[in-house]
Amino acid sequence: MSVAKQDVRSLAETARKASRVLASAPTAQKDEALRAMARRLRAALPTLLAANAEDLAAARAAGKPSAFLDRLLLDAGRVEAMARAVEEVANLKDPVGERTEEWDRPNGLHVSKVRLPLGVVLMIYEARPNVTSDAAALCLKSGNAALLRGGSEAARSNAAIAAALAAGLTEAGLPAASIQPVPPGERETLLELLKLEGLIDLCIPRGGESLIRFVAENARVPVVKHYKGVCHVYVHAAADLEMATRIVLNAKTSRPGVCNAAECLLVDRALAERFLPQVGRELVARGVELRADAASGGILGQAGVAARPATEEDWGREYLELILAIRVVDGLDEALEHIGRYGSEHTEAIVTADAGVAGRFTREAQASAVVWNASTRFNDGGELGLGAEIGISTSRLHAFGPMGLRELTSQKYVIHGQGQVR
Amino acid sequence: MSVAKQDVRSLAETARKASRVLASAPTAQKDEALRAMARRLRAALPTLLAANAEDLAAARAAGKPSAFLDRLLLDAGRVEAMARAVEEVANLKDPVGERTEEWDRPNGLHVSKVRLPLGVVLMIYEARPNVTSDAAALCLKSGNAALLRGGSEAARSNAAIAAALAAGLTEAGLPAASIQPVPPGERETLLELLKLEGLIDLCIPRGGESLIRFVAENARVPVVKHYKGVCHVYVHAAADLEMATRIVLNAKTSRPGVCNAAECLLVDRALAERFLPQVGRELVARGVELRADAASGGILGQAGVAARPATEEDWGREYLELILAIRVVDGLDEALEHIGRYGSEHTEAIVTADAGVAGRFTREAQASAVVWNASTRFNDGGELGLGAEIGISTSRLHAFGPMGLRELTSQKYVIHGQGQVR
Repeated sequence: MSVAKQDVRSLAETARKASRVLASAPTAQKDEALRAMARRLRAALPTLLAANAEDLAAARAAGKPSAFLDRLLLDAGRVEAMARAVEEVANLKDPVGERTEEWDRPNGLHVSKVRLPLGVVLMIYEARPNVTSDAAALCLKSGNAALLRGGSEAARSNAAIAAALAAGLTEAGLPAASIQPVPPGERETLLELLKLEGLIDLCIPRGGESLIRFVAENARVPVVKHYKGVCHVYVHAAADLEMATRIVLNAKTSRPGVCNAAECLLVDRALAERFLPQVGRELVARGVELRADAASGGILGQAGVAARPATEEDWGREYLELILAIRVVDGLDEALEHIGRYGSEHTEAIVTADAGVAGRFTREAQASAVVWNASTRFNDGGELGLGAEIGISTSRLHAFGPMGLRELTSQKYVIHGQGQVR
Repeated sequence: MSVAKQDVRSLAETARKASRVLASAPTAQKDEALRAMARRLRAALPTLLAANAEDLAAARAAGKPSAFLDRLLLDAGRVEAMARAVEEVANLKDPVGERTEEWDRPNGLHVSKVRLPLGVVLMIYEARPNVTSDAAALCLKSGNAALLRGGSEAARSNAAIAAALAAGLTEAGLPAASIQPVPPGERETLLELLKLEGLIDLCIPRGGESLIRFVAENARVPVVKHYKGVCHVYVHAAADLEMATRIVLNAKTSRPGVCNAAECLLVDRALAERFLPQVGRELVARGVELRADAASGGILGQAGVAARPATEEDWGREYLELILAIRVVDGLDEALEHIGRYGSEHTEAIVTADAGVAGRFTREAQASAVVWNASTRFNDGGELGLGAEIGISTSRLHAFGPMGLRELTSQKYVIHGQGQVR
């Protein structure tokens, strides 16, 4: 164990050294490396598929469920998608060196704020091999060294991907240690990594809630995390019902297993009788199970739409499947109260034609994204135009919501004088 | 102990509730509260002095050194300064609700980023009573509830200050629980507080390095911290020597006990013989002890300027007194290497007339502030125009450098559509 401890520390020290080179690497060199990484991924296709086949065989032998095997699987199409995603990062604007603001002081000092990399980023994730190349590309472009600790079930695939990426780095004259896979191992290795304050600047865990809680509870290094998405759609009295139906259906059914899918519908009493039968029928037709409070259950029942009674446990629950909790509320205040109590600060949407009500909702609903007259599903780095996202934060420190390249940087003050003293 | 645990949790829960009210409190109401708080501080002068006298007597009886007693002392002038500082925060721009950027997506969605408070901020500090009112004012203006845990030696003073502030809050119709002192107590209380993830959004420790390390090592809540300031002044070959002398003298001697004071002078070999005797004489005349490497020691010695030989321990050392380490370097690269190895990422200054060299220095020196042709002492919230600072961060996550009102906020995405779905 003490050997493993030493290994982990020297891994991080190597990353720290590489990060110093990356911090002042020119954009053109980083982009050249990204394009070389993409080429190397394509060239390594047979190697990647062979490594992945071994991972898959082991996972199958271990009795992993089919959804797990699907996430783990690489094929030619997926490898091509990984390579393209890396190339797309080369086309994004380099955040490093960006002057975000500047001003003059009365004493003549000129002050500006300039973006710089965070340093070393540790990604912890489960068995999706594409996270390895996605995270590596975003870290590199933002001038950060990356330590990538994927799930042990994907270890062979990840090692093969990392080797291809390292070859691309070397081709462009950047340190291969800029991107390093962390050998999977016992929890002890992970614990050691999480304690390396001063060597690791940010840890981003991605995966199930239990992994994220483990990281959050044991880390000494800063963690930006996302526990869950309990997203509400509030249909206000002044909503366009056709729009509200479209939004609710999309938010719930377009991809129910993701964190920006809706889990609960709040409906103003004033339009519940007009709206609920219509939206309820459409939801049920798409296979959604409804869990309704007494008021909405009554209305749905009278309209002949099947709904189970909701219990206290249905509020604030992240189903991640085709189930929707429904509650009738008496206006904006009650909706905000419900969201304040049961929401997860991820995404909250309102449907209304009343700009004043929407203004209060967007100000007062506590979430990384508040949405007026659109689907909750838009709280996503790609959809918002960030280019690509490395994760999503539901805590407010450093970043709140989808994290793109900018969120992988910090800002320093640059002060320019003509000999000023205090 | 389990009672204390419960007390601490309910304190934080009360703060969390208050933070919800503060998050949407109008600017005018917060400013009214700040002005009322200042009035109440002035009106409470006799009470504050009486409480402070008790703290002082106890500290004296405990044999605390005179510098400690001076930091603890309140008098009419200091109370007036506290009240004025609170009023000045009322005059600063409210960061909450500020739209920092906005853009349109091809599908017609309008996206903006809007500042919101962090939530509940825990300040941990030592025996300076003015931190209580300063921190309270900055947290309030930025819409955050504050938990204030000052040193136990200042407990009576802090309780009296907090009572005056609470009276001001109530006068303006804001929850008194927006600003709460944490009763000082055993380390266990502090440990409990530091674990309240989900109730406390940010912890800012201010004080000696051992307090800060204790907090960093035991916190589950996010911490923004500052260990120390090992600031260098690098006098480049193309420096104006008169300017360089002025800057070095100011950086070292204007207030040697603070974190943005210089601790080490790096001098290019090309001008060491011309520059060192002159600056050395001026430093010694101001009572500064010089600790010189072999090259600079030789030059100083020949000029008859007293200097002790520097040892390896002098590099990277934060003296916080009238001592200056001096080293001769062979140009920019060696200076950057020294700073990279021994700096603390706080403040690094260069004196040069060469814009190209300054550009590389400001890009490559790793510090929260890089200064070209001015004193290191300008890395300060007030001097940079932030209005007031609640602390200074030498880690890059969330904030790097002085933290003002803006750094006490986060940003959320506001997405406005016309019924868009994915």
